[in-house]
Amino acid sequence: MVKNIKNDAITPRDVDFAQWYTDVCKKAELMDYSSVKGFIIYRPYGYAMWEIIQNYMDKRFKETGHENVYMPLLIPQSLLQKEADHVEGFAPECAVVTKGGLNDLEEPLVIRPTSETLFCEHYAKIVNSYRDLPKKYNQWCSVVRWEKTTRPFLRGSEFLWQEGHTIHATEEEARAETLGMLDIYNETAKELLAIPMVTGRKTEKEKFAGAEETYTMEALMHDKKALQSGTTHYFGQGFAKAFDMKFLDKDNQQKYVYQTSWGVSTRLLGAIIMIHGDDNGLVLPPRVAPIQVVIVPVQQQKEGVLDKAYELENILKAQGIRVQVDSSDKTPGWKYSEAEMRGIPVRIEIGPRDIQNNQCMIVRRVDGQKECFDLSGDLTEYLSKVLDDIHQLMYQKAETFLKENIHSVYDYDEFKDVLENQGGYLRASWCGDEACEAKIKEETGATSRCIRVGDTPEETCICCKKKAKHVVYFAKAY
Amino acid sequence: MVKNIKNDAITPRDVDFAQWYTDVCKKAELMDYSSVKGFIIYRPYGYAMWEIIQNYMDKRFKETGHENVYMPLLIPQSLLQKEADHVEGFAPECAVVTKGGLNDLEEPLVIRPTSETLFCEHYAKIVNSYRDLPKKYNQWCSVVRWEKTTRPFLRGSEFLWQEGHTIHATEEEARAETLGMLDIYNETAKELLAIPMVTGRKTEKEKFAGAEETYTMEALMHDKKALQSGTTHYFGQGFAKAFDMKFLDKDNQQKYVYQTSWGVSTRLLGAIIMIHGDDNGLVLPPRVAPIQVVIVPVQQQKEGVLDKAYELENILKAQGIRVQVDSSDKTPGWKYSEAEMRGIPVRIEIGPRDIQNNQCMIVRRVDGQKECFDLSGDLTEYLSKVLDDIHQLMYQKAETFLKENIHSVYDYDEFKDVLENQGGYLRASWCGDEACEAKIKEETGATSRCIRVGDTPEETCICCKKKAKHVVYFAKAY
Repeated sequence: MVKNIKNDAITPRDVDFAQWYTDVCKKAELMDYSSVKGFIIYRPYGYAMWEIIQNYMDKRFKETGHENVYMPLLIPQSLLQKEADHVEGFAPECAVVTKGGLNDLEEPLVIRPTSETLFCEHYAKIVNSYRDLPKKYNQWCSVVRWEKTTRPFLRGSEFLWQEGHTIHATEEEARAETLGMLDIYNETAKELLAIPMVTGRKTEKEKFAGAEETYTMEALMHDKKALQSGTTHYFGQGFAKAFDMKFLDKDNQQKYVYQTSWGVSTRLLGAIIMIHGDDNGLVLPPRVAPIQVVIVPVQQQKEGVLDKAYELENILKAQGIRVQVDSSDKTPGWKYSEAEMRGIPVRIEIGPRDIQNNQCMIVRRVDGQKECFDLSGDLTEYLSKVLDDIHQLMYQKAETFLKENIHSVYDYDEFKDVLENQGGYLRASWCGDEACEAKIKEETGATSRCIRVGDTPEETCICCKKKAKHVVYFAKAY
Repeated sequence: MVKNIKNDAITPRDVDFAQWYTDVCKKAELMDYSSVKGFIIYRPYGYAMWEIIQNYMDKRFKETGHENVYMPLLIPQSLLQKEADHVEGFAPECAVVTKGGLNDLEEPLVIRPTSETLFCEHYAKIVNSYRDLPKKYNQWCSVVRWEKTTRPFLRGSEFLWQEGHTIHATEEEARAETLGMLDIYNETAKELLAIPMVTGRKTEKEKFAGAEETYTMEALMHDKKALQSGTTHYFGQGFAKAFDMKFLDKDNQQKYVYQTSWGVSTRLLGAIIMIHGDDNGLVLPPRVAPIQVVIVPVQQQKEGVLDKAYELENILKAQGIRVQVDSSDKTPGWKYSEAEMRGIPVRIEIGPRDIQNNQCMIVRRVDGQKECFDLSGDLTEYLSKVLDDIHQLMYQKAETFLKENIHSVYDYDEFKDVLENQGGYLRASWCGDEACEAKIKEETGATSRCIRVGDTPEETCICCKKKAKHVVYFAKAY
């Protein structure tokens, strides 16, 4: 009884993209809901993707001189309130512990929504001299922000992330860190996730609570909405002054440190799903796929078939390819559909006739391309190339999609028309006035995603027609 | 100005062991206090040790078929209350969130003290058939238990750990898992941390809240007090019935699953410190040392000295040895003391005369043994052997200490006398009656650490003189 899980499992993207997304998250077993709203369970397949991202980025962080630490989960309310802009940004989203060990607490404790204040307090204690600088710390943890509307991976009351917090003796060094980490994020997106990003600076309105400048990378989803996917912040000396983070410099002067922070989260999983997925489910870029190759034995009850499948598995595994034989008691057709749903980049089919002919079938998830491979060749080498090709193809597809959906617009009617009928990014010139930004958001639903540093604006602002200062990418966004 | 940090930095162990411990934790920069009592900061050097432990264990877990997941931080109070013994055990230690996003919550949420209830709820949802079993999940996270008395790594209101939660179709399989994971814990202690453990079963009184049986590994500290260092629990079907975790078995019958859980925490760092440390600070077993070899250049301002130090560093690093050149502007003597305080297993000294003679000095932290190495030999190979030797030596030292401090006692006066004058483990026969266990604890301060399965008891209980059932190791404990 072959049941085709394709048809009844997920909603097509063009029918209801939001429902498609939820279907994929659930049916590909990336996550499940818990009984607390906005708190999801990261299931093994979803968590394994996050682990791969963690390993990749952690290596990059350490190569660039960062060290991991772990800060407390709870922040005294008074500590969170030390920097004015910061507390204003986060107070409405806080989860507050008021009882501990059966007693009411004297001071309420907030579950970290982000850990700037904890790092500041610690740095103020341990840094005395220029010799102690820079400090470049990072932590992997979960944070809690009470959200009204939540969606798996995209917006949750709890999510997993890394938060880097660094302090430096000079402004120059801190600014270089802010941009350098954005580069690492951008490279991770490109090299690991096959995702092209638009990068730039956030406007004053959209920047992080307490930052002087926020930089962002933004990805474009299949439904042409933008997804903020990673941000880095330059703090200047704002927190340094609020927390008295001073050091004795070489010139024997007490100075305030310059500070940065930066983070990416499990939102990246949402980006992978929404950029690469199709109507049959997930399509995973090979380098982030927990299973890169699934081997499906055909007529597996026949002598030698399973043996051969495991033989191939062992060969590939020994060379570092993440491979799995699906030896469950389902039909091959069912297994193919499941492998498609789970987005496994390559499927190998091998049955008695293939074995007789010393061959196997290799099928690519991304485009269904199917070919017969002669097993007297080097399968590992060939598959490594196939996986690389798939990565490149997926990146190029996403890049083409991105480029096709960046629209330069020159007046406000055109802006509204293109937004309405085409979506994507609207590249427009802006005067720098928050009023225009707010008006555009209110009237069209599009927000400023980023200021494109170095891009030359037209004469006039798209909105008010006063002199333009910046090129901004606007889009509807998650 | 050479200042000897040895003398003024830490209290000798025999003067005040507790103070020595705190001094080492702070001065070796393993941790710092935060402004919330019982919530510590894991500093880079301490956290790096935890990462090495994580990597080692995670590999073992995955090799044995376990998968990582991430469960929510918060548990509805009603969910935590579903299993009666469990809630009774944890209710007094809970941190409770009562406000979220500026509103009072309808139902209070508890920060996980442990996640059995979350795993149970999830498993009940996703398991239907014997085909879905076993489920062998693990998560790395922090948990919160409101403690009155806290000490770095040993007892905190927040600590880092892993918690494994598995369900199985048969009792046999679940029992094998419970013991198998204890083996993996025990091997980790031996192979990675150079710590010999005493293993056994906890008494009814000491077992985990909700478990049928708890197994433990217990380490013996320098002050002859025991430290519970890892536990595995067999739950039978208790939680399965409370949470309705059923599956359709091959025989077409609905059955309850059999369950286990198991965990080790950052307590292991406390064990490493208190077992191996000495009056000069930390002494780290090489396999868990974040820095295995420190290279101290002597007269580093002289031409070629730093170059040579970096050359050696590169050679060793390329072969996977964790090595660091200390090129700071301190004196060599100061660097030696710092390296000692931080417990770095091997120190290499190299100066102009060494370079002239194509040699370097190699000094072992564990015993101060110093030798001259001819650099025409293979330094990496030699150091690998040295590091292995140090590991073996440290294990043997700890094992000798452990064996010397297990005292078989045959009557209650002897028990009290040995406990008072010698400390360590008291191997005694016990009737199995909780009254005797409680009396011993009350009168002597020693608790039952574990029942030694397979060890034959004497005729009579050490306490009541009724018929003995078990051999129990008693000790004062952390």
